[in-house]
Amino acid sequence: MASSYLDAFSRVRENAPLIQCLTNTVVAQFTANALLAIGASPAMCDTPEESFDFARIASGVLINAGTPSVEQYAGMEQAIAGATSVGTPWVLDPVAVGALQERTRFAQASVIKNPSAIRGNASEVVALAGLGAGGRGVDATDSVEVALDAATELAVRTGGVVAVSGPRDLIVSEGRTTWLDSGDPLLQQVIGTGCSLGAIIAAYLAATRDTEISAHDAIIAAHAHLGVAGALAARSSAGPGTFAVALLDALYTVDRTQLAQLSSIVEQR
Amino acid sequence: MASSYLDAFSRVRENAPLIQCLTNTVVAQFTANALLAIGASPAMCDTPEESFDFARIASGVLINAGTPSVEQYAGMEQAIAGATSVGTPWVLDPVAVGALQERTRFAQASVIKNPSAIRGNASEVVALAGLGAGGRGVDATDSVEVALDAATELAVRTGGVVAVSGPRDLIVSEGRTTWLDSGDPLLQQVIGTGCSLGAIIAAYLAATRDTEISAHDAIIAAHAHLGVAGALAARSSAGPGTFAVALLDALYTVDRTQLAQLSSIVEQR
Amino acid sequence: MASSYLDAFSRVRENAPLIQCLTNTVVAQFTANALLAIGASPAMCDTPEESFDFARIASGVLINAGTPSVEQYAGMEQAIAGATSVGTPWVLDPVAVGALQERTRFAQASVIKNPSAIRGNASEVVALAGLGAGGRGVDATDSVEVALDAATELAVRTGGVVAVSGPRDLIVSEGRTTWLDSGDPLLQQVIGTGCSLGAIIAAYLAATRDTEISAHDAIIAAHAHLGVAGALAARSSAGPGTFAVALLDALYTVDRTQLAQLSSIVEQR
Repeated sequence: MASSYLDAFSRVRENAPLIQCLTNTVVAQFTANALLAIGASPAMCDTPEESFDFARIASGVLINAGTPSVEQYAGMEQAIAGATSVGTPWVLDPVAVGALQERTRFAQASVIKNPSAIRGNASEVVALAGLGAGGRGVDATDSVEVALDAATELAVRTGGVVAVSGPRDLIVSEGRTTWLDSGDPLLQQVIGTGCSLGAIIAAYLAATRDTEISAHDAIIAAHAHLGVAGALAARSSAGPGTFAVALLDALYTVDRTQLAQLSSIVEQR
Repeated sequence: MASSYLDAFSRVRENAPLIQCLTNTVVAQFTANALLAIGASPAMCDTPEESFDFARIASGVLINAGTPSVEQYAGMEQAIAGATSVGTPWVLDPVAVGALQERTRFAQASVIKNPSAIRGNASEVVALAGLGAGGRGVDATDSVEVALDAATELAVRTGGVVAVSGPRDLIVSEGRTTWLDSGDPLLQQVIGTGCSLGAIIAAYLAATRDTEISAHDAIIAAHAHLGVAGALAARSSAGPGTFAVALLDALYTVDRTQLAQLSSIVEQR
Repeated sequence: MASSYLDAFSRVRENAPLIQCLTNTVVAQFTANALLAIGASPAMCDTPEESFDFARIASGVLINAGTPSVEQYAGMEQAIAGATSVGTPWVLDPVAVGALQERTRFAQASVIKNPSAIRGNASEVVALAGLGAGGRGVDATDSVEVALDAATELAVRTGGVVAVSGPRDLIVSEGRTTWLDSGDPLLQQVIGTGCSLGAIIAAYLAATRDTEISAHDAIIAAHAHLGVAGALAARSSAGPGTFAVALLDALYTVDRTQLAQLSSIVEQR
């Protein structure tokens, strides 16, 4: 696994996957810069008119309904249809699901279409599985551990991978549960780090498609890339402003040795 | 007052108010990061479908019509209605009012609903009061002093607090007029510092609601927090890029002593 | 020419042109900060209701269809009509044209209205001229040299200036072809640098209108301003995060001597 995990990291830089992001306007710039920093190519194409066609040429697709207009919802449905039609991996980030009806309905309708991966915080994953009420806006009010059953249920239902972000990250697919320690608390003080993780996951899935690397391992690597970059960035930060800048630098400069040394992966038996 | 003002500062960090921002797409990321830096929690929920419900669970609401689509205007009306229905404080930032008909009409219709606070530059406040033609886009063409009558008129009419940003800040409520010196000219060279101040005001109003701290004092403190952070940031800046980064750091790290030492508050008799 | 080119640089800071940007949501913040840093004043006014009126008071207009909603397309048509009605210079940035039908149709319809300048990468300019299929999303898959014929054809057809960004920049107007060397590869690692160049061009055209400086020279100067700032920023950068911050600083602090020394301009005979 360790080798497979580091190989996924190298493949993103070699393949430069084109990631179509249908995401919220708050984090679009940071997400695009994070994708560029890891070696991927971002395209924020999200209109109903263009999203189907673009999803068919993209390497991977992110669906993040953080500030969803009626028009963007329609674009998301088109992108999911386009991605599905050619087998492009796509990631669902159910931002603030549970707390608000409209997006809960959309996210639950999207789960039925079997996303390659789902990424959220504990409250979002619990709410998406229909097992709880959701958090307070974008903040998790549940601990990651509480989301284990919900994540497992969603993984079995979709056949995909479910990732729960928190102080420890949890990655679940049918028959496998992995815990990852990396990162820094300052990641919570910058808007868009979690949303960018959804895009980074899409890039890792795209770059490792048709290889011997599993989606589960690719998603561990995506989390480790962001988490280790966060740990490196925190070393030279005086607050959330300098941290966000150093994080983009570290996403770009981090190497395989740092990735291996600064993350701790535990398989749950 | 001095004690009340510093207490407001501490309360934001303790209470972590959830601030719903219906704001323009240009400044959404910076505004969210500014809110995180002062200890608040941002949520950029602005659709017609979700804004009423969200305003009822939010601690405070910002209405900033800087890039208003038809859909966002509808969301703003819903958010104002939701906030008003449960007494949530809400702030109106009438960006570029006066210069453009559509937003002038919206801003004037919003004033009638009695915002807890209005924040703008001198030209915007003058235009909103119906006493002038407005500035050149987002730039003030009037001095803060010129806006005193307009601010007083709006404060009496709405029963709220009116804040005018400029080289010296002016905070007016019925029977009280305060001048604040803090800040740095580089604040004008970074997009979104004024818009973020609207969100910071909402956080201060939310965190001091149901306390002995007046809305007027809370809003002085909001201005001082941003202004003093600006003065601190300027010390280590080589231009507007490094300044914006240092500003987020300083919003996060500034303490009560610095707040008291680097701002000058004068009550007008 | 050398003098004319440096004079254009000085005029932007003296005149502080008001630039209306109808641009994509991903780069709006960075574009606004870039305009502030060069001494211009940004206004991201893009609705159908306000764009005509605003284009009549703006000094210059940018049309960048990077994430175009139906509403923003309508705003763009209004802005072009408003700009044309009073002779305000306007710049067309045909982002990802060729790759996607909807925006190709819009960009080609806009070319007929004779933009003062067109700015894109090689693949976009080739596709816009109808001579090729376009790139992969926002990435150029053609070299700048390949776009020379397309740029010349568009320049003749519109009577404007056509600029092709790449490792070497190409600026073409009827009867004149100029190559510019400046910049740094890190400019490709930050989202919005190319889109900001479109806005910077609009500012240079606005500030030099009604002077003896030609539009062609003004646009060379715009490219040199960004390119030289990029070269300066790269000196103190540890990656794309610190580079983006240093770039804004350098756009603000760069002087005429640095501009002349760090760019190389060659007229094609």
